[in-house]
Amino acid sequence: MMNMTMQMMEMHAAEMPMRNMDLAMMQECIEACSACEQACTVCASCVTGEDSAIHMETCMNTADMCNTMMRMMLRSAGMHMESMTAMLQATMTQCNACAEECMKHADMHEDCRMCAEACRQCAMACQKMMDAMTTSMPMG
Amino acid sequence: MMNMTMQMMEMHAAEMPMRNMDLAMMQECIEACSACEQACTVCASCVTGEDSAIHMETCMNTADMCNTMMRMMLRSAGMHMESMTAMLQATMTQCNACAEECMKHADMHEDCRMCAEACRQCAMACQKMMDAMTTSMPMG
Amino acid sequence: MMNMTMQMMEMHAAEMPMRNMDLAMMQECIEACSACEQACTVCASCVTGEDSAIHMETCMNTADMCNTMMRMMLRSAGMHMESMTAMLQATMTQCNACAEECMKHADMHEDCRMCAEACRQCAMACQKMMDAMTTSMPMG
Amino acid sequence: MMNMTMQMMEMHAAEMPMRNMDLAMMQECIEACSACEQACTVCASCVTGEDSAIHMETCMNTADMCNTMMRMMLRSAGMHMESMTAMLQATMTQCNACAEECMKHADMHEDCRMCAEACRQCAMACQKMMDAMTTSMPMG
Repeated sequence: MMNMTMQMMEMHAAEMPMRNMDLAMMQECIEACSACEQACTVCASCVTGEDSAIHMETCMNTADMCNTMMRMMLRSAGMHMESMTAMLQATMTQCNACAEECMKHADMHEDCRMCAEACRQCAMACQKMMDAMTTSMPMG
Repeated sequence: MMNMTMQMMEMHAAEMPMRNMDLAMMQECIEACSACEQACTVCASCVTGEDSAIHMETCMNTADMCNTMMRMMLRSAGMHMESMTAMLQATMTQCNACAEECMKHADMHEDCRMCAEACRQCAMACQKMMDAMTTSMPMG
Repeated sequence: MMNMTMQMMEMHAAEMPMRNMDLAMMQECIEACSACEQACTVCASCVTGEDSAIHMETCMNTADMCNTMMRMMLRSAGMHMESMTAMLQATMTQCNACAEECMKHADMHEDCRMCAEACRQCAMACQKMMDAMTTSMPMG
Repeated sequence: MMNMTMQMMEMHAAEMPMRNMDLAMMQECIEACSACEQACTVCASCVTGEDSAIHMETCMNTADMCNTMMRMMLRSAGMHMESMTAMLQATMTQCNACAEECMKHADMHEDCRMCAEACRQCAMACQKMMDAMTTSMPMG
């Protein structure tokens, strides 16, 4: 079901550079980015001791990238296909790296395991968006 | 029902400066901030012409404040009561101002009307949090 | 001397709700917010061990608030006096709290001492802006 | 000359995944991102009328990406080479697209011309960082 944000976006569908954008898939990716930003913001402080700097900075990089990625999807008129694809690639790479980092601490920290799960969901949603965009982009 | 973010936060409940924080109320406020950030990001570009600068900048200020407000609630160990209360006050004031600005364009733009609704919801959620915090704060 | 950002803002001066805004003072506050955001982002991971969660989350809250505060000053047409004043108050309170937190670790961490200094500079710049705005606001 | 942020970062140099990172080049890129975020935030509302949505959303995407890019450079312990390179690529692509969009309005808006210049500087600084990172990365 469409949430309010997507109902708003549907009103702008005609302006989108990509007319055939699958809004249900985009809603899924927006929600995955939002959930991942939140999980990483909570998780950033959960590891203390030796590895806390690596863990914290990895989580906060993921949170910031997910927020930026989400906002880029919400701005349908300003969507620039090439940088959108590059940003989806960057976010996906970061989410996978963050999932790996968080899993190192999952035995001790249940919240780290949950954060890793949110990262993986987000990476998958970005991959799906990227695949859809590559397929629908006009040939050169 | 608790979403994943709040399940993660519950694990940190013991560290919170305010032990009696109502997590259900906080989840509601976090979700209202997130919905408002998204609505305002979409709405920012919906007015064109004469008033577009005022409308756009008001919406983007609201989006940025809501994101910061949300993150401050997610960081339970770093919660500083006085600046938290001041930030809730600032966000509530901005959300009400943004709702008023967006309602000026609601006749022409259905998305502006929806954004105003998200702003009002967020202002109310911030007010509830602020009331709860003021009540539970230790007396001097 | 005016930097490029302020030269751009000067072109918008006529649209500002407060015509008599002192742009030199505003540039100083924008730069203090930017420097504080950067210092806090670096400092967030510098304390490890027992107090790392409090320290990290305090620094990241300050970084996020300073970024939002900076953007609100850059958006001259959308400036809403009441929420601007409330946000200056919130940022100032947070910067002072962060300076205090960072000074606890200044003996061990020279970067924490430098971050505390950036926080104090930012708190002072916000205070100056707030005083100027309160003075120049039209009486009821 | 090193600014305060870079003096703080130098204290963390030993933790960096890339020991030979050129801090002067990184400072230049951090400052270019910060200047570009500020310019784009001011510029976002300068075009009114027909193309205002495309222009505004392009500028705000650039501002958000530049802020995230800057923060990723400031977090030396959490630097993940692959996603850092992907993010530099994404930011560079977006900055070039934004410069092109802003140049369309440069005849009418001097601030649009200045913003385009800030975008080009940022794209170049990201390119330099990316080249340096690719060269210094260990071979497979």
